[in-house]
Amino acid sequence: MQGPSCIALLTDFGLGDPYVAQMKAVLLATAPTAPLLDISHDVRPQDVAQAAFFLASTLPWLPPGTVVVAVVDPGVGTDRRVLALECASHWVLAPDNGLVSLLLEQRDVQRCLDLTPSWQPASTTFHGRDVFAPLAARLAMGDDPLAFGVVWQGDAPVRLPAMAPRREGDAVNCRVLSVDRFGNIVLNLDTAGYDVFPPQSALLAPKALPLVAAASYAGIPAGQVGILPGSQGYLELAVAGASAARRLDLQPGDRLRLFWPQGDTHDRRA
Amino acid sequence: MQGPSCIALLTDFGLGDPYVAQMKAVLLATAPTAPLLDISHDVRPQDVAQAAFFLASTLPWLPPGTVVVAVVDPGVGTDRRVLALECASHWVLAPDNGLVSLLLEQRDVQRCLDLTPSWQPASTTFHGRDVFAPLAARLAMGDDPLAFGVVWQGDAPVRLPAMAPRREGDAVNCRVLSVDRFGNIVLNLDTAGYDVFPPQSALLAPKALPLVAAASYAGIPAGQVGILPGSQGYLELAVAGASAARRLDLQPGDRLRLFWPQGDTHDRRA
Amino acid sequence: MQGPSCIALLTDFGLGDPYVAQMKAVLLATAPTAPLLDISHDVRPQDVAQAAFFLASTLPWLPPGTVVVAVVDPGVGTDRRVLALECASHWVLAPDNGLVSLLLEQRDVQRCLDLTPSWQPASTTFHGRDVFAPLAARLAMGDDPLAFGVVWQGDAPVRLPAMAPRREGDAVNCRVLSVDRFGNIVLNLDTAGYDVFPPQSALLAPKALPLVAAASYAGIPAGQVGILPGSQGYLELAVAGASAARRLDLQPGDRLRLFWPQGDTHDRRA
Repeated sequence: MQGPSCIALLTDFGLGDPYVAQMKAVLLATAPTAPLLDISHDVRPQDVAQAAFFLASTLPWLPPGTVVVAVVDPGVGTDRRVLALECASHWVLAPDNGLVSLLLEQRDVQRCLDLTPSWQPASTTFHGRDVFAPLAARLAMGDDPLAFGVVWQGDAPVRLPAMAPRREGDAVNCRVLSVDRFGNIVLNLDTAGYDVFPPQSALLAPKALPLVAAASYAGIPAGQVGILPGSQGYLELAVAGASAARRLDLQPGDRLRLFWPQGDTHDRRA
Repeated sequence: MQGPSCIALLTDFGLGDPYVAQMKAVLLATAPTAPLLDISHDVRPQDVAQAAFFLASTLPWLPPGTVVVAVVDPGVGTDRRVLALECASHWVLAPDNGLVSLLLEQRDVQRCLDLTPSWQPASTTFHGRDVFAPLAARLAMGDDPLAFGVVWQGDAPVRLPAMAPRREGDAVNCRVLSVDRFGNIVLNLDTAGYDVFPPQSALLAPKALPLVAAASYAGIPAGQVGILPGSQGYLELAVAGASAARRLDLQPGDRLRLFWPQGDTHDRRA
Repeated sequence: MQGPSCIALLTDFGLGDPYVAQMKAVLLATAPTAPLLDISHDVRPQDVAQAAFFLASTLPWLPPGTVVVAVVDPGVGTDRRVLALECASHWVLAPDNGLVSLLLEQRDVQRCLDLTPSWQPASTTFHGRDVFAPLAARLAMGDDPLAFGVVWQGDAPVRLPAMAPRREGDAVNCRVLSVDRFGNIVLNLDTAGYDVFPPQSALLAPKALPLVAAASYAGIPAGQVGILPGSQGYLELAVAGASAARRLDLQPGDRLRLFWPQGDTHDRRA
């Protein structure tokens, strides 16, 4: 007999308040033996774009058949719908606010369901606990999602604008997806699409700051800013032993422009 | 055969130091298959009142038969006693310092035991690991608490002063129980007792700042401060998409005074 | 039938980014029922010395047969080796950068293996997920480590300088191993070696600040700085209800000098 699916949680609730515990308590009540995996609860408050990145970068690593509950939900209590995507072997539950934007761009989605509850929810302020957790627990226990949802109809799921980079000649306009604890800057340039190895050099606008292509953080020469294929599937800017974000004064959401002189770097999709 | 009980942990130890891990390691040694649930480890250092709130608001959501270990314990190593409350189907272990104040006010307590160890404890600085965890693991495994404790005698368990609001005519003097990650301000006005729906309006002293009754965070009009029944069972002050605590400059423990003009709001217990 | 070993994780990855989740997802794929225990993920970025302390202080509490994955790894992607120590009944996996310094000093190490992968690793930036987690999962499932490693040869494992204190007459030169959430200062003076009970007094250089020997935090007289045997096996400096680190302006890594006038305190190993 196979056990229940893993349930992975992604929220902006933080770990200081008891909100995540209450979600897990509800999950445990219905699916007491399901392994629980915290993707992150420290998404910046209401930063749907950062959550979309964490979700897309972590999905490929999840155990087969995982149920993901992703709740970054400024619209809780409004009429925004509840989305369920079947993607690889996983189910992803999320508010329809753009949180699944990168999945829709990058992954094969097998099914898209609308799980907006037809019943009056128990609360208008905490759907993570009162709507998403009960649904996720039932999915993890093997219930058929069509028992409590319908095929998505009407407007397509919301997509965030500007999640994709834009080419302009030898330049690419991109943005900061995330800054990690070490100050590494994750760009929305996926490593599958942009082949920076071996580039002559890349430059960061507006000051044409040279970026040194590197294979590891420790391999970036002292005092320089490196560009390397990060572990999350995107190009990263980094500095050895220090914070690139502080050095370059960049934050999530910031836009920037890279140049590859002499057509040195190849957009594989160009 | 039924598995061991869930063990829920609530501390002010933080997650940076290895203290919580050492508690869990002790729990795992005796109760290796008990599900562990973190209520919070980021209670403000030694803030017993905040822990009392987290405990009371989370208890109703816990799986039946949960053993709660609540350790916010400025008096560790002194002669303060170790308390065990049987409450609903749960056992709550805590130092006798007021941490269970809200449970004593709001919940039916079936039994109150004194588990102060008669033996010399292994340490005088870390009873979470050396006293509470071993006791909790034995309770979770189904041991009879009377095997290592006695019925509480002598002075009643400590209660924190001022955990209850106080009415004065059309006003209520209350306090901030907690400020959550989003800056929502949780007041010590439980939603069962105070019916703000539909109020004409409420005002916050001393400047008679109008508070708009709302059903959801997103439903609070831009630029205004909302009052709404929060997910933790208490009224909250909130601002859409921003921090009400920053706007109003309020912190946990701060006292405030609300007015309901024209007797518009009804204290159900009045 | 015995279940899989507990897997304990110690990193400087933080809990904000999805890095720890991706490590756990890899662990769950191979060892789905192994209990996972977080020692800490908030080691200060790239602070190998702090991680060495957390590892040494927590190891004695771990369930028998635990596999520890300790990844504070500034040299990821370089040619630093991957170390596996058999210590008590545990296996400790770590980069060879000094992280096991205190274990090598204090514990009996039964075996020391080199698990540096002979194959090209999947990434050069995230060995926690791509190298350490797969190895740990196999060890937790009972695989023979010699199936994927060899006995350590060549240079001995790296040791951090200055992890041990140095005596000079009636003084001892020591350093701050860690500052905990409460501001307690953990010194590299292990309680087994330094008997401060009952000392007449100890003084902190350079201003000869008196340190009061205490048995518990609450037992430190108001306004004074106490020295006491901490729960982690080392002497600590503390202040009742406040942060000793802030009071004394000390941080991890800082060096300090204590005096025990009149030969009052006894170094048991002297």
